Amino acid sequence: MAKIAVVAGDGIGTEVVAQALKVLRVVLPGVETTDYDLGAARYHRTGEVLPGSVIEELRGHDAILLGAVGDPSVPPGVLERGLLLKLRFDFDQYVNLRPSRLWPGTTSPLAGLKPGEIDLVVVREGTEGLYVGAGGNLHPGTAAEVATEESLNTRHGVERVIRDAFARAAKRERRKVTLVHKTNVLTHAGGLWARTFNEVKAEFPDIETEYQHVDAAAMFLVSNPQRYDVVVTDNLFGDILTDIAAAVTGGIGLAASGSINPERAFPSMFEPVHGSAPDIAGKGIADPAAAVLSAALLLDHLGHPEAAAKVTDAVGAEVAARTPGSALSTEAVGDRLAEAVA
Amino acid sequence: MAKIAVVAGDGIGTEVVAQALKVLRVVLPGVETTDYDLGAARYHRTGEVLPGSVIEELRGHDAILLGAVGDPSVPPGVLERGLLLKLRFDFDQYVNLRPSRLWPGTTSPLAGLKPGEIDLVVVREGTEGLYVGAGGNLHPGTAAEVATEESLNTRHGVERVIRDAFARAAKRERRKVTLVHKTNVLTHAGGLWARTFNEVKAEFPDIETEYQHVDAAAMFLVSNPQRYDVVVTDNLFGDILTDIAAAVTGGIGLAASGSINPERAFPSMFEPVHGSAPDIAGKGIADPAAAVLSAALLLDHLGHPEAAAKVTDAVGAEVAARTPGSALSTEAVGDRLAEAVA
Ligand SMILES: CC(C)[C@H](C(=O)O)[C@@H](O)C(=O)O
Ligand SMILES: CC(C)[C@H](C(=O)O)[C@@H](O)C(=O)O
Repeated sequence: MAKIAVVAGDGIGTEVVAQALKVLRVVLPGVETTDYDLGAARYHRTGEVLPGSVIEELRGHDAILLGAVGDPSVPPGVLERGLLLKLRFDFDQYVNLRPSRLWPGTTSPLAGLKPGEIDLVVVREGTEGLYVGAGGNLHPGTAAEVATEESLNTRHGVERVIRDAFARAAKRERRKVTLVHKTNVLTHAGGLWARTFNEVKAEFPDIETEYQHVDAAAMFLVSNPQRYDVVVTDNLFGDILTDIAAAVTGGIGLAASGSINPERAFPSMFEPVHGSAPDIAGKGIADPAAAVLSAALLLDHLGHPEAAAKVTDAVGAEVAARTPGSALSTEAVGDRLAEAVA
Repeated sequence: MAKIAVVAGDGIGTEVVAQALKVLRVVLPGVETTDYDLGAARYHRTGEVLPGSVIEELRGHDAILLGAVGDPSVPPGVLERGLLLKLRFDFDQYVNLRPSRLWPGTTSPLAGLKPGEIDLVVVREGTEGLYVGAGGNLHPGTAAEVATEESLNTRHGVERVIRDAFARAAKRERRKVTLVHKTNVLTHAGGLWARTFNEVKAEFPDIETEYQHVDAAAMFLVSNPQRYDVVVTDNLFGDILTDIAAAVTGGIGLAASGSINPERAFPSMFEPVHGSAPDIAGKGIADPAAAVLSAALLLDHLGHPEAAAKVTDAVGAEVAARTPGSALSTEAVGDRLAEAVA
């Protein structure tokens, strides 16, 4: 039976994860879960971010379900670098998967777009690029300060994520992969990405491909998001593009994500894209939809595609049935979803 | 009298620049212009991108008006690195200025937004960051390839552009500056940007400030672009954010830009954000509005704020008077604008 580590985290993280677990237990009876207390609260209490012993324990699980970690009171970078990125890197979660759909019942801020018209997935590289943390500060705090950040990209890392994107596109209806980079300026890394993309695409002759510079893609995600099916891109570009994709599909309320090691050599991690939202925490009004959709990605990853589809469809139906202006509580939405998948 | 170097460039570049010059000559009679043949056409004809002698000649001008350079037939990076970025760096054009307004007569792809509701300017750093070209490829073309890109940021470079952003905000109605970076991941460069921002802002106590991560800013530019007044950010983030800003204000048809050396120690360069658009080149249908607005930025930079305002207002009025569905020729729009400013 699947063993899931649960990091509910801070703020609304605990509230939405409780609903995701409620749904998960219905479709995967007997699933074993273990709670891990990580995040801003623990950091303030103990000074610890992610003890080595906890990493070792997490390693023994099939997947991690995460709510949200963070709080404005923690200095920037501490939890991001020390917890989220540490797990992505230590567990070689090289596929950062972020689907974006314009669901029935939701409204895009883009005029005239109808539900169903946006259905894309961004395959964001998760273990390289500018996220490696290479860099430093020379003469810090002086007029002579120099700060560097280095983007590291390997053929190994680029090829495997591009290959994953093609494999995902092959299973989708439109079968199209868009590579996004900035080859006209970042010629070194861009060259590696473009060459590798062209080599891998030769193995998938029936998949349509295109290339776009990141600035153009950012624009097209607003002016013509319908054109995308699978988008593959580097770590930083993926961070930005997925937030635009979330915005044009009505915000991060429904944005799910998986930090995936496709080979399952390490546990993959699933989490809503939204943060801990301290402003609404504790009120029981957070929308658990993105957390539940993240649990669906988890199910799919662990080899339960039917259960995953059931959960995803239940969320879609629940969202479509919402009455504008009268929001249900976090708990009530979770109950509805658990009932729907029963 | 002002001496302007004109790089009409490729495709629609020549067509739109002709109209910008038409308007410029009306408001700045006697302006001296010299044409420089640079871009894809020259590259194909002679193999030259930007001969040293041309740089020296350009240096003798007060400003450069550029149409568009580029063509799909030129390998990525050749004209970008060899011409556009070379000029930005050689002429220390550290303020890359990109205003975005939702003009009367234009429609935002965002539902419910009314003209006037978006009026922001991005002050993008133009001479540092990932654009410096530092990096390389180890074991290229092999399975062991490593490609790097290095972002270089100096206190000197960061402080001057932040200072410029505050100075511009001080002259605007809303007096607000938003710093955009990714301090939670790019802690080295982000630290330098954040510390410098906080120091400079202490000198401008009556200017409102905020900080946003680049992914959040990309999202807010779609969900709530009204919140921005002046945005200051690094070279790459600015590249992406300005294209989103252009998209939400109706596309790049009206997006003007200046690559500015505020001290006027070197010529600044003004150009529409759009490219050479080979698909519509030669048909006389390109919209010259962005090129004319770029000429207005040029006028402002050279110390003619009234002339700049006149040109900007004329474009605004012309755009507002357009009949949807019946596009005027490039030439006819230029004539109207020249008449309006006469
Ligand atoms: C919190 C931060 C480290 C993270 C990232 O930049 O990847 C977040 O923005 C995300 O997209 O998951
Ligand atoms: C053409 C390219 C080098 C350039 C950039 O990335 O700066 C362009 O996208 C721009 O925004 O001016």
